[in-house]
Amino acid sequence: MLAGVTSIAIIGTGAVGGYYGGLLARAGHDVRFLMRRDLEAVRERGLDIRSPGGDFVLSRPAVFAAAEDIGAVDWVICSLKATALSEARALVSPCVGPQTRILVLMNGLGIEEQFGEWFGRSRVFGGMAFVCINRGEPGVIHHLDYGRVSIGHLEDDAAQLRELQLLLESGGIEVASSPNLRYARWEKLCWNIPFNGLSVAGGGIGTRLIVEDEALRQTAEQAMREVVSVANADLAELGSRSRLDVDEVVRWMFLQTDSMGDYRTSMALDYVAGRPLEVEAILGEAWRRAKQLGVPTPTLAALYSLVRVADLRRRGLIQTIPTE
Amino acid sequence: MLAGVTSIAIIGTGAVGGYYGGLLARAGHDVRFLMRRDLEAVRERGLDIRSPGGDFVLSRPAVFAAAEDIGAVDWVICSLKATALSEARALVSPCVGPQTRILVLMNGLGIEEQFGEWFGRSRVFGGMAFVCINRGEPGVIHHLDYGRVSIGHLEDDAAQLRELQLLLESGGIEVASSPNLRYARWEKLCWNIPFNGLSVAGGGIGTRLIVEDEALRQTAEQAMREVVSVANADLAELGSRSRLDVDEVVRWMFLQTDSMGDYRTSMALDYVAGRPLEVEAILGEAWRRAKQLGVPTPTLAALYSLVRVADLRRRGLIQTIPTE
Repeated sequence: MLAGVTSIAIIGTGAVGGYYGGLLARAGHDVRFLMRRDLEAVRERGLDIRSPGGDFVLSRPAVFAAAEDIGAVDWVICSLKATALSEARALVSPCVGPQTRILVLMNGLGIEEQFGEWFGRSRVFGGMAFVCINRGEPGVIHHLDYGRVSIGHLEDDAAQLRELQLLLESGGIEVASSPNLRYARWEKLCWNIPFNGLSVAGGGIGTRLIVEDEALRQTAEQAMREVVSVANADLAELGSRSRLDVDEVVRWMFLQTDSMGDYRTSMALDYVAGRPLEVEAILGEAWRRAKQLGVPTPTLAALYSLVRVADLRRRGLIQTIPTE
Repeated sequence: MLAGVTSIAIIGTGAVGGYYGGLLARAGHDVRFLMRRDLEAVRERGLDIRSPGGDFVLSRPAVFAAAEDIGAVDWVICSLKATALSEARALVSPCVGPQTRILVLMNGLGIEEQFGEWFGRSRVFGGMAFVCINRGEPGVIHHLDYGRVSIGHLEDDAAQLRELQLLLESGGIEVASSPNLRYARWEKLCWNIPFNGLSVAGGGIGTRLIVEDEALRQTAEQAMREVVSVANADLAELGSRSRLDVDEVVRWMFLQTDSMGDYRTSMALDYVAGRPLEVEAILGEAWRRAKQLGVPTPTLAALYSLVRVADLRRRGLIQTIPTE
């Protein structure tokens, strides 16, 4: 390994994995992308990243169809969809050697714990990307706005966390530190639950309608407030002294969303494309945690139930009333 | 007018108007139906009512394409969709003579007050039908279950109300008396808001999924509890001593719905057919009343916002994210 060059496997090259892996590859790291849908397109034309921070193309990135061909690396960044969690262990394992560390860049509460059980807790990190990003035509990623990644280590090892921070920053990625992983997970859910939820429950709508329509905006805010309540109850029960400030969260999240344009959430894009939705990772686990903790979450329950129905309906797994 | 025979104009012969008008015609009353969609079919083949209480056909009912041809009657039963409220005055007026009384059998809070302004308060009655009923092919009405009508007089005139009760009972219709009209309206909304709302927000689903899925059922119950809160605040402000008992309402409404089979709500049928939804009459007015009264209704707000979006989306009035 050359000094300063790190080998990184991107397991799951969707928009998130492609974008952050692309930034790290551009910075000179040895990045190896596992990809499916875009494999042939990227082999032919490279990986094309369009970003307000500057467009760039990786003309000959190292792309792989099988994790076995990637081999052991210094870092695995697992950016699979939460709906592919059952495949994660098999896809990550071939890339894990004795020194390998793993950054889990997926939606879901308690997902790092799952990786900790599989691979040992001391090597597992979690990351939450606050980024507006979509896949375009095969081989093209549209980065629209933001990009900060909140990171944490599963055992809160500050020294190890600092290494990950330096790695990401070497790619020009903005890194935020959170009081702890759990806090960062909840912070992300504060946005994901209302906006991913309503974008699907509304039948595939963008964020602009949600923030501009009075009743939808009120519903989004109410959902966010409920998530903060669950988050704080959860953090308290886990012994964390960190708390989310509900008014500050609402103010900040809406400020960002108001200036986001008409963003299409990842869940809405999955919905209109008929792909399985991350409904349990984003909504279901928060709803179940709220039930365990006895925190009332009527709006979360409504969104969870309706997004679940939308997921099943879109994939033909429940019957709807036929048109006349 | 023959003794005991009453002339009745049914303004808006959908499922509700056709069913109750059919029962009254079968009992020998002079019932005159205003209809659009089914006019030719009924002229050719009669009005065919299929009911667990006994199928029957009115082979030559008096059907009209224009209210002007109906003339003044003893009773008008206005069973238009709430979305046709703007046409109601013009359609009802030609049938109103000095002695005519009007039963408003439509969804909506405050709708009798509107009729009272148009035609004078002393002649206006409101009715809420608790009935599972769908239109079938043209000229056919499928009555599935229930059928009770709660009635009230706009000025709470008990003697006049008794006359209406006797008229309806002469057709074999079960009549319930409510403490007052407003109470009856709210009682109906306790079912309509959760079940019509979720059946549309879920993308056109029947009642069975709503009562059998844990999260959907919880959402339906929460919405119902919120409606009861608004109802009681509203009744209190209007000086009524009547109150809905929240646990009793929940118990009773779910008991009935659990035994209903997989009922398709009128709003879900309108939704899948692309017709305008009664979203303001059923959800919007309750939501606005809750806001005025300062009653928190997160689930109602979520359902209202999502049903509104579904209505606009289904009719092509808002853009959704295109499929890839």
